[in-house]
Amino acid sequence: MHGLIKMGLAGLGLAAATALGADPAPNGITLPEGYKDWRVLSVHHRSDNGTLRAVLGNDVAIKAAREGKTNPWPDGAIIGKTVFKGDKHDRFPTATEPVAFVHAEFMIKDSKRFKDTGGWGYARWLGAEQKPYGKDASFVQECIGCHTPVKDRDWVFTHPVKLP
Amino acid sequence: MHGLIKMGLAGLGLAAATALGADPAPNGITLPEGYKDWRVLSVHHRSDNGTLRAVLGNDVAIKAAREGKTNPWPDGAIIGKTVFKGDKHDRFPTATEPVAFVHAEFMIKDSKRFKDTGGWGYARWLGAEQKPYGKDASFVQECIGCHTPVKDRDWVFTHPVKLP
Repeated sequence: MHGLIKMGLAGLGLAAATALGADPAPNGITLPEGYKDWRVLSVHHRSDNGTLRAVLGNDVAIKAAREGKTNPWPDGAIIGKTVFKGDKHDRFPTATEPVAFVHAEFMIKDSKRFKDTGGWGYARWLGAEQKPYGKDASFVQECIGCHTPVKDRDWVFTHPVKLP
Repeated sequence: MHGLIKMGLAGLGLAAATALGADPAPNGITLPEGYKDWRVLSVHHRSDNGTLRAVLGNDVAIKAAREGKTNPWPDGAIIGKTVFKGDKHDRFPTATEPVAFVHAEFMIKDSKRFKDTGGWGYARWLGAEQKPYGKDASFVQECIGCHTPVKDRDWVFTHPVKLP
């Protein structure tokens, strides 16, 4: 439905993504509002795909992280990864900096709603156009597969940083 | 003065840093309050010293970045770098994650107060104990030296990321 409205708006030259938000993921999860303004849980660099990541948390996640209550994370916690293609900084050659936004992906803790997937709902939106990832709801099996090595840490790779 | 009080409090087993805050930097700059809660401007990885950095901005800096008004940055903008020693993630070997907090460092834009140093005040606090960096106020020459390659970008290396 959003897609159809967006096509119409695109024809009118309107900024549909801003006006209506991103389409939901194939599993029904909607893009968490205001994630751009969330606070930092951690920072990662991946050498296998040359990406930099800022791992953000909503208020529930940040509170849990600061109190060390993350195994399990509380219901209501949302962890967001903003992922960027990295490249050499043009004036600091030993530094890698973000050069393009790749995607934003989320884990949403709701032990009832997502009881079939370890208590977490997974979703990802690709690029500046925020295209939902996955052909159908089965895409979450890919998420689960990758996260299985940290099943004993409530499925979360991120170790939240401690700032003084 | 803070130092003396802290020694006394340390003798009593009190958490002095929490009770009184960090000592000011040798140039008189005080630790910006609440920087832990600031939003993300960018993320860097440095291969020369194996560190990961979350670059944060206060509200003035975030607004300027989102509006693309960063050359020059407006007075009142503060850019904070939180720096961590990175190491291989224990369950994701191609990922580098923070394993220890190294320091927090700041650039504070005030074109009048800091007119002798390009409009920016520089300060850094080391480690969890937040020890001010520098023996005396001349430490800023080291900051200026490193930032000179980006003098034409108002002395700032960071290219703020754009999140959809």
